[in-house]
Amino acid sequence: MMTGSRNPTRIGRRALLAGMAMMPVAGALIARTASPAQAQSSADPLASWNDGAAKRAILDFVRETTDPASPHFVPPEARIVTFDQDGTLWVEQPMYTQVVYCLDRVPAVVKAKPELAGVEPFKTVLSGDRAALAKLSMKDIETIAAATLSGMSVEGFVADVRDWMAKAKHPRWNRPYTELVYQPMLEAMQYLRAHGYKTYIVTGGGQDFVRVFAGQVYGIPPEQVVGTAGEVKYGYAANGTPLLTKEPKLLFVNDGPGKVEGIHLMIGRRPGAAFGNSTGDRQMLEYTKAGEGARLAMLVLHDDDKREYAYGPAEGLPDSKIGTFTQALDDEAQQQGWVVIRMKQDWNRIFAFE
Amino acid sequence: MMTGSRNPTRIGRRALLAGMAMMPVAGALIARTASPAQAQSSADPLASWNDGAAKRAILDFVRETTDPASPHFVPPEARIVTFDQDGTLWVEQPMYTQVVYCLDRVPAVVKAKPELAGVEPFKTVLSGDRAALAKLSMKDIETIAAATLSGMSVEGFVADVRDWMAKAKHPRWNRPYTELVYQPMLEAMQYLRAHGYKTYIVTGGGQDFVRVFAGQVYGIPPEQVVGTAGEVKYGYAANGTPLLTKEPKLLFVNDGPGKVEGIHLMIGRRPGAAFGNSTGDRQMLEYTKAGEGARLAMLVLHDDDKREYAYGPAEGLPDSKIGTFTQALDDEAQQQGWVVIRMKQDWNRIFAFE
Repeated sequence: MMTGSRNPTRIGRRALLAGMAMMPVAGALIARTASPAQAQSSADPLASWNDGAAKRAILDFVRETTDPASPHFVPPEARIVTFDQDGTLWVEQPMYTQVVYCLDRVPAVVKAKPELAGVEPFKTVLSGDRAALAKLSMKDIETIAAATLSGMSVEGFVADVRDWMAKAKHPRWNRPYTELVYQPMLEAMQYLRAHGYKTYIVTGGGQDFVRVFAGQVYGIPPEQVVGTAGEVKYGYAANGTPLLTKEPKLLFVNDGPGKVEGIHLMIGRRPGAAFGNSTGDRQMLEYTKAGEGARLAMLVLHDDDKREYAYGPAEGLPDSKIGTFTQALDDEAQQQGWVVIRMKQDWNRIFAFE
Repeated sequence: MMTGSRNPTRIGRRALLAGMAMMPVAGALIARTASPAQAQSSADPLASWNDGAAKRAILDFVRETTDPASPHFVPPEARIVTFDQDGTLWVEQPMYTQVVYCLDRVPAVVKAKPELAGVEPFKTVLSGDRAALAKLSMKDIETIAAATLSGMSVEGFVADVRDWMAKAKHPRWNRPYTELVYQPMLEAMQYLRAHGYKTYIVTGGGQDFVRVFAGQVYGIPPEQVVGTAGEVKYGYAANGTPLLTKEPKLLFVNDGPGKVEGIHLMIGRRPGAAFGNSTGDRQMLEYTKAGEGARLAMLVLHDDDKREYAYGPAEGLPDSKIGTFTQALDDEAQQQGWVVIRMKQDWNRIFAFE
């Protein structure tokens, strides 16, 4: 399961990872996403989607809400669509990318604060002890996140994430994480934008973290990323320059019901469409679907372990610590008319580099 | 000082007001702002501004940042400008409009919770005792705000504010508060937007409150209003419908250093230009001005008691409980190159109905 790495810390965090394989492939997603003209000039704006209920649902929703003759026409300024990120826009297995980033930052944090070297959970992360790392609790991860995502200026954080993103690679594909976004979802985003929809990311991940690359990867500006947010503090550098510092204190957790609360805080209106993949997206989909007129709520089901991963535990898929698509969620999707996107049958291509 | 009113509560809160006169005038701002073509087709997009340093500063900033040949050219997607609201976009004297709203809502709150009738500060508000009302502390106002701005669904709140706004009138002009916006600032907003700037309101007032009318009055959508925010809670109505309820708990206070923190949270990047009028805008202007390239920081000085109000206490103007333009702020403006807008000399028209 584990593969070699130059850095013991980066070996260590892989103890949390499961079922990986290293498969180097050539190609570059960035070049593709940087050229939206490509998708638009194509005869089919959703070329990576196979014909079926999922593709049809997107096309129908856009037609119903943007055709001025439709009874469910929505004026352009009210067209809002939200996308979860992890597991909906990009790969979330075997570990959330931001957790990998946090673990990789532990050595730098301990270097600045040597007293942490003997304190848990930092001691375990530094040890590279795979078995111990695999047992880190959610609370441990939160402690690591608070320590590694705070104490720097907001600009310093952006520079560090950018730097890390340029170097870090996903263990299975040996490619930058930013290439592991789903081509069909990029096409759906572009298609919705081409029809006047304002696209938002609404993620349980860190708002500041995702903002660093959302422009380059998704064409989404910082103000359209809604995520879990820590506090920042205004102050002055020694030379008097104004400075915003990231604090080790959560302002709000943008997950589950928090996603709807975050949407209210950051957007101030109900989305017309929402895309998710797990129980953390449940309330966002409920809230979206409960509005008047034509509504679109979609859930990505990861049922393709050959091309990506397969996990549920709904529909007999293996359970997973992250991105849980439970049977209850599957049942609610059916009751509420949410559309399930089945990777295996609905997507003819998953990544741009394929 | 006090004038008659049908409602004792609304008489009462006017004990906080100073120097009012009732001056009914005809005209409608809404019709004007709903027609941006008007300003654009005019030979001078800043027609309500007299020639001078303030008007020149706006024109220069826009030219410097939008002319592709300029060394300080800013790409359209990075053009952000922020406006304080109270005292910068509309009249804040003799009382913040939102405080008037909260005081007016006290009877409805007490009707729903009769036990509050005997509890301060509600008792004082209901009494209509002007002398006692004038002595309400900031903490009392906060208690009233928490009680009157929470407990309802977000949709219920929007409906109530809309309803109130349609009826409430400013005591001096006997016009809806939404007509008491400054025509020169509307022109500046439209001019900036016409040059690709994304206009934001960054207010110490309630985010949910200002969002209700920001579209109609300023042409600004809900997601571009950053303000003091209370928590909302996701839940379900008795029939199972998803419901967001406003909670009596502050999430963040968007004032002073909080404005910069709010800008980071909600926008995620530094504005190129910012407009304010008081010490609560100080840090926003510092932060804006500290960025690279061409920067514009402006402060409205209310020095025109004939057409509006005159208060400082800088430059020998009378002190005011709200919207304080202190001598220290005036000094910092000079040191930092912020441009002071002097109502008396810089604006040839203050309101659209004039």
